[in-house]
Amino acid sequence: MEKIKRNERMAAMMQILTTSPNRIFTLSHFCEMFDAAKSTVSEDVSLLEKTVERFGLGRLETVTGAAGGVRYRPSGGAGQRDFIEGICRKLSDPERILPGGFLYYSDILSDPELICGMAGLIAGSSYSLLPDFVLTMETKGIPVATMTARALGKPLVIARHAIKVYEGSAVNIPYVSASGGIETMSLPRRAVERGKKALIVDDFMRGGGTVNGMKALMREFEVDVVGVSVVLAVEEVDRRLVENVRPLMLLGLLQDGEPPRVRPADWIR
Amino acid sequence: MEKIKRNERMAAMMQILTTSPNRIFTLSHFCEMFDAAKSTVSEDVSLLEKTVERFGLGRLETVTGAAGGVRYRPSGGAGQRDFIEGICRKLSDPERILPGGFLYYSDILSDPELICGMAGLIAGSSYSLLPDFVLTMETKGIPVATMTARALGKPLVIARHAIKVYEGSAVNIPYVSASGGIETMSLPRRAVERGKKALIVDDFMRGGGTVNGMKALMREFEVDVVGVSVVLAVEEVDRRLVENVRPLMLLGLLQDGEPPRVRPADWIR
Repeated sequence: MEKIKRNERMAAMMQILTTSPNRIFTLSHFCEMFDAAKSTVSEDVSLLEKTVERFGLGRLETVTGAAGGVRYRPSGGAGQRDFIEGICRKLSDPERILPGGFLYYSDILSDPELICGMAGLIAGSSYSLLPDFVLTMETKGIPVATMTARALGKPLVIARHAIKVYEGSAVNIPYVSASGGIETMSLPRRAVERGKKALIVDDFMRGGGTVNGMKALMREFEVDVVGVSVVLAVEEVDRRLVENVRPLMLLGLLQDGEPPRVRPADWIR
Repeated sequence: MEKIKRNERMAAMMQILTTSPNRIFTLSHFCEMFDAAKSTVSEDVSLLEKTVERFGLGRLETVTGAAGGVRYRPSGGAGQRDFIEGICRKLSDPERILPGGFLYYSDILSDPELICGMAGLIAGSSYSLLPDFVLTMETKGIPVATMTARALGKPLVIARHAIKVYEGSAVNIPYVSASGGIETMSLPRRAVERGKKALIVDDFMRGGGTVNGMKALMREFEVDVVGVSVVLAVEEVDRRLVENVRPLMLLGLLQDGEPPRVRPADWIR
């Protein structure tokens, strides 16, 4: 085999690390792959770290210890506030106000680059919480939750409205939906293991009924909820209803004849 | 600014291309970013092409013409049949058979690496169809459809069971569900533009009712369905019901006391 050059090794490593965010790859893995000495790969990694930082491409981290190695996290680029402000501008279009005073934002949740960017921000603020899985409630939050799960390198669990016979035994709980009615949230017994840690991700929060439902559901499974992230939250929401929620954007009360007011949450810098 | 070395340029380009699959980046984009001559960046790109091929990391393609540049596609690695065979083995566990003769496979759709791998395969077989968006029907297919949309660099559109008032006007069509009942499929008017091309992605196909429903829905929007991909299809399905469907895996009839029989579709090599 032709000898592998540093630039080839670095490009290949970058591709592999980017493709499996938050997964720790041992240096030995790369040594074997490239038939290279540990000192060589170690030098490659420190060059990669600098490159990723220099161009604002996320973060490359070296993890020491027995399970040590290197991992990539797609979070915390310099432009993250600009990115969210861009989405806020899109959402502030008066054409988006629907009959009944609702805001149309499904298209924002359908664009892969926007979803990935938002998921990167959510994951970036959640790595330290060490979630074992991401939980969402069907339907609109699923794409962002999927990308968040990917950025965290953890499984995605989806709660649903109804038990499906083909899921086996399930836990059902009642919850108060955004419209004020009582609905049911359901999760198969097999989907979650007792004692794990959940990060809740959802697309929209008004009164917090769905989020509180997911929290109650997790209590049934004896799972600890370590964080709650939502894409868009109503600004005037009563904060006591749901604690420690991190929205990406805040929506002001929609008023007749005025464009929607959407702004980034304060924690996004 | 310190001069940027080839290995830094190559690693950064690889990261950027991998992060936005199927998006064409002009060479000028990278020339500006790295303050480098076109001939230099062009040489970087051909080295990257070889690296990606050498390590089976997908495909890097140079696109000529006015809208030309370079793009990354995460498809067609050498190990794709092995990858699907691995999933088939997991699904062949007798513990997965649920009361009523259903197969539990939600966990397969919750693991980000598996979803990305399956989406890469679906995208790989669909690039030539030039879809403008990916269409799925809630709920379980959404994660794979999301990742497929990402691999194609195209938006994701989700059809739902019920009209939600906060989506504005919608088109509803009745369809025959897997259980044989008549259900409703709904899509907001704003979600899709007339004259576009759709790739349908779903998790499971038995009789093809849901897929046929999505096709009928697209006719209402005057959208052309250019392809249909499903993760798992029942082997004995009557092929005349749905044409040109590409499943990743085929499921044999579940029989009492026997483990599930799941195998990769023939087109996967």
